[in-house]
Amino acid sequence: MSEVLPTYDDVVAAASRLAGHAWRTPVLRSPAMDAWVGAELFFKCENLQRTGAFKFRGAFNALARFDAGQRRRGAIAFSGGNHAQGIALAGQVLGIPVTVVMPRDAAASKVEATRACGAQVVLYDRQLDDREAITLRLSEARGLTLVPPYDHADVIAGQGTVTRELLEETGPLDALLVCQGGGGLLAGAALVTERLSPGCRLYGVEPETGNHGQQSLRRGAIVHIDPPDTIADGARAQHLGALTFALIRRGVTGIVAVPDLALIECMRRFAQAMKLVVEPTGCLGLAAARYAGLPVQGRRVGIVISGGNVDLPRYAEWLSAR
Amino acid sequence: MSEVLPTYDDVVAAASRLAGHAWRTPVLRSPAMDAWVGAELFFKCENLQRTGAFKFRGAFNALARFDAGQRRRGAIAFSGGNHAQGIALAGQVLGIPVTVVMPRDAAASKVEATRACGAQVVLYDRQLDDREAITLRLSEARGLTLVPPYDHADVIAGQGTVTRELLEETGPLDALLVCQGGGGLLAGAALVTERLSPGCRLYGVEPETGNHGQQSLRRGAIVHIDPPDTIADGARAQHLGALTFALIRRGVTGIVAVPDLALIECMRRFAQAMKLVVEPTGCLGLAAARYAGLPVQGRRVGIVISGGNVDLPRYAEWLSAR
Repeated sequence: MSEVLPTYDDVVAAASRLAGHAWRTPVLRSPAMDAWVGAELFFKCENLQRTGAFKFRGAFNALARFDAGQRRRGAIAFSGGNHAQGIALAGQVLGIPVTVVMPRDAAASKVEATRACGAQVVLYDRQLDDREAITLRLSEARGLTLVPPYDHADVIAGQGTVTRELLEETGPLDALLVCQGGGGLLAGAALVTERLSPGCRLYGVEPETGNHGQQSLRRGAIVHIDPPDTIADGARAQHLGALTFALIRRGVTGIVAVPDLALIECMRRFAQAMKLVVEPTGCLGLAAARYAGLPVQGRRVGIVISGGNVDLPRYAEWLSAR
Repeated sequence: MSEVLPTYDDVVAAASRLAGHAWRTPVLRSPAMDAWVGAELFFKCENLQRTGAFKFRGAFNALARFDAGQRRRGAIAFSGGNHAQGIALAGQVLGIPVTVVMPRDAAASKVEATRACGAQVVLYDRQLDDREAITLRLSEARGLTLVPPYDHADVIAGQGTVTRELLEETGPLDALLVCQGGGGLLAGAALVTERLSPGCRLYGVEPETGNHGQQSLRRGAIVHIDPPDTIADGARAQHLGALTFALIRRGVTGIVAVPDLALIECMRRFAQAMKLVVEPTGCLGLAAARYAGLPVQGRRVGIVISGGNVDLPRYAEWLSAR
């Protein structure tokens, strides 16, 4: 990779850009959760972020760095999920036209939310079309700048502000658990913990069926997997990126994987004990604290809740599952 | 009434007692909710308070004012809901023994949560037993001090800290919407708004089937009603108290009532747009902002979310209702 890795200073710069645009989400505590896990838990609630997920931060930071020509021509992204809404809102706030390439079978609520922020949505067919080809064609034809969902220095730096805000509030932690799909949030966390809480054990958490990060760490090279079958739709990436892998490899203590059933149990507990709606991907950190056998007992542990975007009928089913 | 009404200074004193014990809950915003209502909304999230409801504040403030003898002998309360957990936790924190008289058919989760805080729970039968007689007998036999759920100066002053924290964060508001059952939260809000935001229109909000407050304001005297049939179980009081009525009469612009169907719609929107689990009673304020025809359009409006204690199976049904 010729691209340069982002640094902690890039996270600080991102924080200034985001001030007044992204919300400083609360860090919440829960004695019931502490008792359940046997640790002192600090939850950074990005489900309460604008658009319901941390993705707004990275997208906004990337768009805010566009030059005049890029701003005029606009940005393009492909995403069926939280990155779509994140970049759509960022474009709206900054007055930059945004095009998002989304699968035709994406949740109607997500397509709507993306359009509601003024983005142009281009739908494609997962079976018939090549998403990247469509994106590339549009990008070249209209001079649009591509903002990838995770493997981009500005995106990673933006996501790093989540962990920075958390550690500013809690001080140094013994451990930090961060969900991981493509690795943008985790890579940002690595950049920040090595500076602000150097003794902190940092763990990435993946769904069991999509543990490409774990495999990549073991092999020492980026492993690609088939599309994983998991309810954690924010962690269905099939591989890390070159930048995220480099930062994760350098900064994490390890990557652990948890089963979907554990995510459902955690979703129920977030609703019951903390009154929070958390999407399956956002439950990965708590699930690891409780079920992954990590050395967190009696420790001060940070947990990043990545988002809360769920379709209500599905969510209601998970809550009533037994 | 010979008892003296609490003042704003009592709220300030309560805030000092509560510091470090009650949590300073976040004030959250939501562009989606703003658009839905057509106003700038500021949500004070007491569903994120300890025990999942504001009731901890008033109970703690009352217990913190006990003298040495009262502390030794203990407190007693009757409640099937949030006051039970509030006073149980307050007693645990302050080392004061607490007895709570609860109906035998109260939600198992609430009885458990009350016991988990070390309170002694005395169960009674709604059909056969006289709750107040049982409480009085225990109180006299053991020298326990009764802490009523709302009509008590220290309880009202404690609940007033909710509105004080909200206004400290937002500055003066054009309107404030507060749910009302027995009126403790609303009376506290009245004490605070008249001092910190004198131009603010303050509205109490009741379930349509339990609009005794509205009737009392009209008649100029406390009206008693039959037990109301509403899903807002935190607003099933049958009348205001002498203290709460006096303060509400003096301080509110009006009391409005909303139907249960509106509460369910708001519950769904809280989950979808704000990722918050809110109990039906906690939805009263938002429902009034949207449906009660109040002059809130384009204004800065505070909404108190009173709590988030719901049984998950029931909650899941409400979320999937159409």
